[in-house]
Amino acid sequence: MKMKAIVKTGPELGAELREVEAPQPSPNEVLVKVKATSICGTDVHIYQWERWAQSRIGTQRLPQILGHEMAGEVVQLGSEVHGVKIGDNVSVETHIPCGHCRQCLSGQAHICHNLKIFGVDRDGCFAEYVAVPEKVIWKNDPSISWEFASVQEPLGNAVYCTLVEPVAGKIVVIFGDGPIALFAAGVAHVSGASRVILAGMEPARLEIARKMGADQVINVLSADPVQVVLDATSGFGADVVLEMAGAPKAIVQAFKCVRKGGRVSAFGIPSEPVELDWNNAVVFRGVTVYGINGRLMFDTWNTVRQLLATKRLDIAPVVTHVLPLNDFKKGFDLMMTSPKSSGKVVLIP
Amino acid sequence: MKMKAIVKTGPELGAELREVEAPQPSPNEVLVKVKATSICGTDVHIYQWERWAQSRIGTQRLPQILGHEMAGEVVQLGSEVHGVKIGDNVSVETHIPCGHCRQCLSGQAHICHNLKIFGVDRDGCFAEYVAVPEKVIWKNDPSISWEFASVQEPLGNAVYCTLVEPVAGKIVVIFGDGPIALFAAGVAHVSGASRVILAGMEPARLEIARKMGADQVINVLSADPVQVVLDATSGFGADVVLEMAGAPKAIVQAFKCVRKGGRVSAFGIPSEPVELDWNNAVVFRGVTVYGINGRLMFDTWNTVRQLLATKRLDIAPVVTHVLPLNDFKKGFDLMMTSPKSSGKVVLIP
Amino acid sequence: MKMKAIVKTGPELGAELREVEAPQPSPNEVLVKVKATSICGTDVHIYQWERWAQSRIGTQRLPQILGHEMAGEVVQLGSEVHGVKIGDNVSVETHIPCGHCRQCLSGQAHICHNLKIFGVDRDGCFAEYVAVPEKVIWKNDPSISWEFASVQEPLGNAVYCTLVEPVAGKIVVIFGDGPIALFAAGVAHVSGASRVILAGMEPARLEIARKMGADQVINVLSADPVQVVLDATSGFGADVVLEMAGAPKAIVQAFKCVRKGGRVSAFGIPSEPVELDWNNAVVFRGVTVYGINGRLMFDTWNTVRQLLATKRLDIAPVVTHVLPLNDFKKGFDLMMTSPKSSGKVVLIP
Amino acid sequence: MKMKAIVKTGPELGAELREVEAPQPSPNEVLVKVKATSICGTDVHIYQWERWAQSRIGTQRLPQILGHEMAGEVVQLGSEVHGVKIGDNVSVETHIPCGHCRQCLSGQAHICHNLKIFGVDRDGCFAEYVAVPEKVIWKNDPSISWEFASVQEPLGNAVYCTLVEPVAGKIVVIFGDGPIALFAAGVAHVSGASRVILAGMEPARLEIARKMGADQVINVLSADPVQVVLDATSGFGADVVLEMAGAPKAIVQAFKCVRKGGRVSAFGIPSEPVELDWNNAVVFRGVTVYGINGRLMFDTWNTVRQLLATKRLDIAPVVTHVLPLNDFKKGFDLMMTSPKSSGKVVLIP
Repeated sequence: MKMKAIVKTGPELGAELREVEAPQPSPNEVLVKVKATSICGTDVHIYQWERWAQSRIGTQRLPQILGHEMAGEVVQLGSEVHGVKIGDNVSVETHIPCGHCRQCLSGQAHICHNLKIFGVDRDGCFAEYVAVPEKVIWKNDPSISWEFASVQEPLGNAVYCTLVEPVAGKIVVIFGDGPIALFAAGVAHVSGASRVILAGMEPARLEIARKMGADQVINVLSADPVQVVLDATSGFGADVVLEMAGAPKAIVQAFKCVRKGGRVSAFGIPSEPVELDWNNAVVFRGVTVYGINGRLMFDTWNTVRQLLATKRLDIAPVVTHVLPLNDFKKGFDLMMTSPKSSGKVVLIP
Repeated sequence: MKMKAIVKTGPELGAELREVEAPQPSPNEVLVKVKATSICGTDVHIYQWERWAQSRIGTQRLPQILGHEMAGEVVQLGSEVHGVKIGDNVSVETHIPCGHCRQCLSGQAHICHNLKIFGVDRDGCFAEYVAVPEKVIWKNDPSISWEFASVQEPLGNAVYCTLVEPVAGKIVVIFGDGPIALFAAGVAHVSGASRVILAGMEPARLEIARKMGADQVINVLSADPVQVVLDATSGFGADVVLEMAGAPKAIVQAFKCVRKGGRVSAFGIPSEPVELDWNNAVVFRGVTVYGINGRLMFDTWNTVRQLLATKRLDIAPVVTHVLPLNDFKKGFDLMMTSPKSSGKVVLIP
Repeated sequence: MKMKAIVKTGPELGAELREVEAPQPSPNEVLVKVKATSICGTDVHIYQWERWAQSRIGTQRLPQILGHEMAGEVVQLGSEVHGVKIGDNVSVETHIPCGHCRQCLSGQAHICHNLKIFGVDRDGCFAEYVAVPEKVIWKNDPSISWEFASVQEPLGNAVYCTLVEPVAGKIVVIFGDGPIALFAAGVAHVSGASRVILAGMEPARLEIARKMGADQVINVLSADPVQVVLDATSGFGADVVLEMAGAPKAIVQAFKCVRKGGRVSAFGIPSEPVELDWNNAVVFRGVTVYGINGRLMFDTWNTVRQLLATKRLDIAPVVTHVLPLNDFKKGFDLMMTSPKSSGKVVLIP
Repeated sequence: MKMKAIVKTGPELGAELREVEAPQPSPNEVLVKVKATSICGTDVHIYQWERWAQSRIGTQRLPQILGHEMAGEVVQLGSEVHGVKIGDNVSVETHIPCGHCRQCLSGQAHICHNLKIFGVDRDGCFAEYVAVPEKVIWKNDPSISWEFASVQEPLGNAVYCTLVEPVAGKIVVIFGDGPIALFAAGVAHVSGASRVILAGMEPARLEIARKMGADQVINVLSADPVQVVLDATSGFGADVVLEMAGAPKAIVQAFKCVRKGGRVSAFGIPSEPVELDWNNAVVFRGVTVYGINGRLMFDTWNTVRQLLATKRLDIAPVVTHVLPLNDFKKGFDLMMTSPKSSGKVVLIP
């Protein structure tokens, strides 16, 4: 069977829409017909063939199909698949764990010692069909639209990062205005945060943050977020800081914004080392820091489902664009333009 | 100085409005001018002079001033009070801990080994003035109205009971329709519970539950709450059950409604022993049970303040009556009538 | 291939040593050559064909091979097994989860909604060979003897029950003197419990408890455990109570022994309902109760391995008998005699 | 009443033994006759009048009595002290909290927003008598010797740092060989750590570490601790790393030694900023970091008491010197010499 797919073909900017052979599921895999898929920053790094993509994927592995965020319908089962049925509405956990290491055997499969990444270490889902190991299949609540079901994976990042400790009655500060930070504003708001303050630099995205439930937004180009947060908290600092910007400066500021005994969730990925006043950032102030990568498998997914299916959380303001898969170049352009006006970009095969 | 006070004078139903001498604060106490005070079920038990009141308080201690839920203004300081100022807007934690026992020294002062109860073991606050140990003073956010500030103590029960573990993305069932159960419906809703189901028997209160955020209410006089919950959860049961009714039957049902691995918060106080199928209620199903008494001192109070001051939680539907202190008999009658249409009754001195 | 196996053949007391066909592993299973296997109380219930066994297993399923605690060597792999190798030294988690229910997807697979039990719902390991699903295979540390590796499953019960919250610096009381209670005494001791008190009724087993690290033992036939514990704790009660006896009386006493704010781990399985003074047992005293069934998959197994492989925990006093598989009747007799002098009985095929 | 005291008199190295007026307790204070007191690194910083001491204390506050670790007997009560009696055997929590800030009201008084330090912000205990606020008095178990009771405060640092999450069955690596790191080796060992590895540079102290229960010691002058730890953990890294050295290099190495999903307790205080590869240290690897300052008030003290009074933990190897108070100069010299052969130095007034 032939299918359309967005394929990274060579070591330069871009990707191609190609007709390729559809994959065959192995015994523990299922074949999924993709109904919606969305673009992640990781896809952009591969599209741009940045240094990380060059070393992690490498030219010799090309051509490879892009994409890892998706929702679709199961159309074929491997011979040893027993927990999924033809017709199931599913999404995919991007982190493919080995199932046998120290972490996999202790409830931390999302940070498996031998982790493989869907769409990075194997073909992804910017295609009409994709083969997926049963162990990373998540069954969707059918009341969730394909578009929203597709973005559950990054929404899961936001849920895990925000709710790694409870936020009810707490003051939450978010650094960053990318789609996951915008999701986090919504998650914190509907989970009882008493005040949500988001610091970013893209006016259109700060506007989305407000729609998601941020009580206050800070444009870091025109205001000092540390001062604003201290002013808003009688000088104590915030109970919770979610660092989702990834700039070294933002990381330093995150620690200046958190109160003594508060917590910082570290999700943003700086491109260079970070210099910290360790004593005042962490030790003397009794701060707890959680490194956040991926989502709990699958406790976070359950929370995501519950929040979406019951409409407690409305993510419509973040899902700004839905395009046909054929228009993927327009989608990537939206993600790369500055100033950024897009939130999440969904592609429909 | 003379003041008005509602005084339990003898071993029979009722209480009297009397003019008595205002108290003098000892060195570690403050004198508070009461601005609002609210009636608790405990006050009703004393008012009715039930068996518990007879044995806990006893005739020899009478006359004693009733009441323990309140908000007011500090008007005089004991000589060794350094953390409170004249004019501070305050409420009072009812649990007066010794400060020296195993629990007090381990962050569990609310269940002190030598606990004294404000308004039970010493004169209460149904009066114009009351003397309060500094260690149980809580400073209110001044944006909270006197009426709402007065009910923070029972609201704190609801917050502690509901949020002893996080509820975001979880299905929460509440047994009971008293004011604290109604508060809990609101707390669960604004803290991200994906579904809140409340089971009670007073139609007017079930209506309040809906206003507070319950997605579904069950009148146990006409429906089997266990069946309704199992139907609503694909047969799994709820993630969280808050038992706030206190009837042995409700306690048994609570365990039948919770899913394997879920939690039950046990707040309701049955008047007789409870017979449980221990294996299926607790052991085989890996259920966690939290006995809930009082509120964390003062972590819960901070959450209460944050939820009220930011208007994340609106408790107006529960505060159904505000009366002058002189009309206390009407207030008690509202609490004792059946079917109950009242929520929380506030008295203004 | 033929093999020896202990088979339950009919609806009466006993079992037979038979020569049967060795199983063939299906694609996701492995075939294990059993090196050591041990007798659990569950096996005794099936051997005696008690009411529970009659209804759970039923005559129509017989003949069935007994046993679920084991250690052995992998000798054959199903076609889809990728995480286990021929020659691996393995044990088996008895709880076979579905992998798809609410609990399986949230780190609680040990209390799966659709749980199957190895040796109960399918053939067990009192045999020379056994087929086991890869998902319940645990790789042993090769420094652990076959005998000790075989009892890791019940030791895991003790570890989970004891360490569901930390015990370092805490006073721990254990009700029961069965093998798992005796293990728990050792686990609590080496995990920093400041005092371990075990209450039982079999003098030989109380002696084993002392060897495992119990600082104090109580024979409940001659002393009131509640009084002894209160005397030993200045009247406060113990920080932690592990209820592993299962008698209704022991359960009632467990709650009288725990301090306010302490925790009770409920592991024992009473044969009739339990009547509790709910208010004083749980609510007023702010007690936390954990229902304990099985072991965390596989976090508990890792702890077990670490404690055994490093010799931090020596379980030799509990493993009182090692017999050839052919002598299984002697083994069952040891488990059924009273007064009990045996701890754990291991069988070697 | 006159008394002997070790007084910092001027802005230069050293201190003087002086006869001064004994303090009078204010209404909420008690007067304690000091039976044993021990020297902390903080005392050395003040003794040496380092930059930190110059700015934190300042010349204008001198003369001031040194010292904060102690045990003694209550000899006089302020008028409002009700929880302590004449003759009580007590120690002192160094962190004097305000009792009214966000942290004090949420179980985090040890990192109070307005923290005062005993012996830094007010006169200390290198003296025959000292006045102490009742709120920081801890009643000792009388079975603990004065010398050991005196070092409970730094032992509490070790207990809090080690047990902020449980260590039973876990591999624990400790960076540093100061007295608190040596205590931590013992605490981890008796709390069930399956393997304790300590990295330091003073041979005499590495020897003490072994006596305290370290299974393996690393001299960082001759071996690479990261490589040693990875070799000892099959390349996974340790479950828990306690960073108690405070050198930037040690902090960087601590993160290289911890496994994915593990935790780092950050206790050491570097004298300059620390540059971290944030992604690989924290984010990608899902590491949790706890800043550790002080001890929980007073949950940690209870654990310390339990471990010492029951002899579960023997700290004798660390308490290397007991000198008369008059020989304080010898004590300080022991702390300042290199290579360091001392552990904890106790002074007896």
